[in-house]
Amino acid sequence: MTSPTPNHPPFPNSEMVRREDVMLQRIAAILGGGSPATGEIYIGDDAAVLSPSIASWLVSTDVAVAGVHLDLDLFTISDLGFKAVMSAASDIAAMGGSLRAIVVAVTAPPGTDLEELHRGIADAASELHAAVVGGDLSTGPHLQVAVTVLGEAPAGGALRRSGAQVGDTLMVTGALGRPAAGLRRRREGAEPADALVRAQSRPRARMASGVAAAAAAVSAAMDISDGLAIDLNRLADASSVGFEVDEIPIADGATRQEALSGGEDYELLIATSDVEAFRSQCRHADLPEPIVIGRVVAAGTRTASGQPLPPVGWLHEF
Amino acid sequence: MTSPTPNHPPFPNSEMVRREDVMLQRIAAILGGGSPATGEIYIGDDAAVLSPSIASWLVSTDVAVAGVHLDLDLFTISDLGFKAVMSAASDIAAMGGSLRAIVVAVTAPPGTDLEELHRGIADAASELHAAVVGGDLSTGPHLQVAVTVLGEAPAGGALRRSGAQVGDTLMVTGALGRPAAGLRRRREGAEPADALVRAQSRPRARMASGVAAAAAAVSAAMDISDGLAIDLNRLADASSVGFEVDEIPIADGATRQEALSGGEDYELLIATSDVEAFRSQCRHADLPEPIVIGRVVAAGTRTASGQPLPPVGWLHEF
Repeated sequence: MTSPTPNHPPFPNSEMVRREDVMLQRIAAILGGGSPATGEIYIGDDAAVLSPSIASWLVSTDVAVAGVHLDLDLFTISDLGFKAVMSAASDIAAMGGSLRAIVVAVTAPPGTDLEELHRGIADAASELHAAVVGGDLSTGPHLQVAVTVLGEAPAGGALRRSGAQVGDTLMVTGALGRPAAGLRRRREGAEPADALVRAQSRPRARMASGVAAAAAAVSAAMDISDGLAIDLNRLADASSVGFEVDEIPIADGATRQEALSGGEDYELLIATSDVEAFRSQCRHADLPEPIVIGRVVAAGTRTASGQPLPPVGWLHEF
Repeated sequence: MTSPTPNHPPFPNSEMVRREDVMLQRIAAILGGGSPATGEIYIGDDAAVLSPSIASWLVSTDVAVAGVHLDLDLFTISDLGFKAVMSAASDIAAMGGSLRAIVVAVTAPPGTDLEELHRGIADAASELHAAVVGGDLSTGPHLQVAVTVLGEAPAGGALRRSGAQVGDTLMVTGALGRPAAGLRRRREGAEPADALVRAQSRPRARMASGVAAAAAAVSAAMDISDGLAIDLNRLADASSVGFEVDEIPIADGATRQEALSGGEDYELLIATSDVEAFRSQCRHADLPEPIVIGRVVAAGTRTASGQPLPPVGWLHEF
């Protein structure tokens, strides 16, 4: 890590001119210059203009910090860019929305391979079929990527955490714990190409699952970014309900603790009164069969296999 | 500066539970809980839902890094929050838009006074009559604030940098150099309450000037965030034109170099074929009289007072 750049360095001379602008141009090339169809552009103006042909927008922001969200001794800088975008996009999936635009604000020490970082950002955007329409680039003592995502709300309204009703069935869109298991395996020496390691370095936001959940008009949804235990408790808090979990779906290769508390799964947690409707939407979209994990009960009960399930998981400490 | 928090610390126990959520609740109280009128909320879901009653959205993102954008030995942490928001809002002003929503992603080392930081963010949002509708909070080794702003484009379309025409008059919305002069004065021992120091610590985005420029249908606009010299060159690049500046409007107490290259002025740079229309809109909105600084000429000429004006100003070095 380098020292912070001093505030207002000596006025640069004309030989130093436009190094920042040149870097922005290179990045724009990597990012594909936005979406020509809608006139959205990555650089060239102070703000991006978004197409008006959308009913209701969703917006969310997420930051990925080198060494906190990803250990760069074990993973690459392009993984950091990729994860930053996927993690933000997952919040749109959690609301049942469709991703429409991405903006990225990067802070990096001098010498950072910004092109490699933006290749990861572009890979994620490409997988998500969304354009990076704006960005900011700043020097700073520590590498991090703040991503803001804009999505279109589903026609029936965004899915909320607060809608779970007593009697609803609780489901998740897949088995849990793969990213945490991948991190453990990478620390033990597994290769970057290992499937579990890839679940940590190249996660996938469950955009199609969110759309399926909205189409099935589920009661409540959220993404499991901080681990099932803490996120189940958040859903219960928001909906003023309790829960009884029968079984934690543990992914092959993961431990129960990784499935419960590892976080970064990005599978969706769903509460619904109509299990078959959600199953049918998932089949219709060629998605994996969602997994029933338990049910919503009256406030006061929060258990897994009959034992209390407190909100333990990934937390930032301030 | 502390060491980076390790990636995936030991799974927290239940006594550590929800410290992050509690901090988010405190911050939500400071931020006023979003805008009840439109149902926008700061926390409680994965993304904010924005009112659909807008023709076309503008979006921009900007990051403020402690020690790079503001020296915290000279200024306060709430100043950093305030500046981060104003700097992002200025990009909406530059497009002639009206600010509608703000999201903030904060990275901070443990022990940071996050409430004080968010008081500055809330002060800026309040002055701008805009709600903070979403946020993210992460631990990290270095304090920074990434702000994304969403605005409504003007009815006639967003103002671009690329619209300047040969023959247009170049104007700025105010004299330049006050923030750079304020930084110099603060370093020399001036009090935080000094008017020039406040121009550095509590800048104002020129939202009303942007609206006036859009109403006057000016040819091109941008904010002067990196200094007049570099931003004039950027306007000329984007519009494929040249410029002749007769006189740099230097603010009282500032030097010519501060006015040209100090940056962070946030005054707007305007190119227009109808000076009187813009003046009239400014008068109508009780804004200061805009200042004519020169004219747009054919590409190839870029001068101030007859001398070449290269793009020197505030630049990040990568």
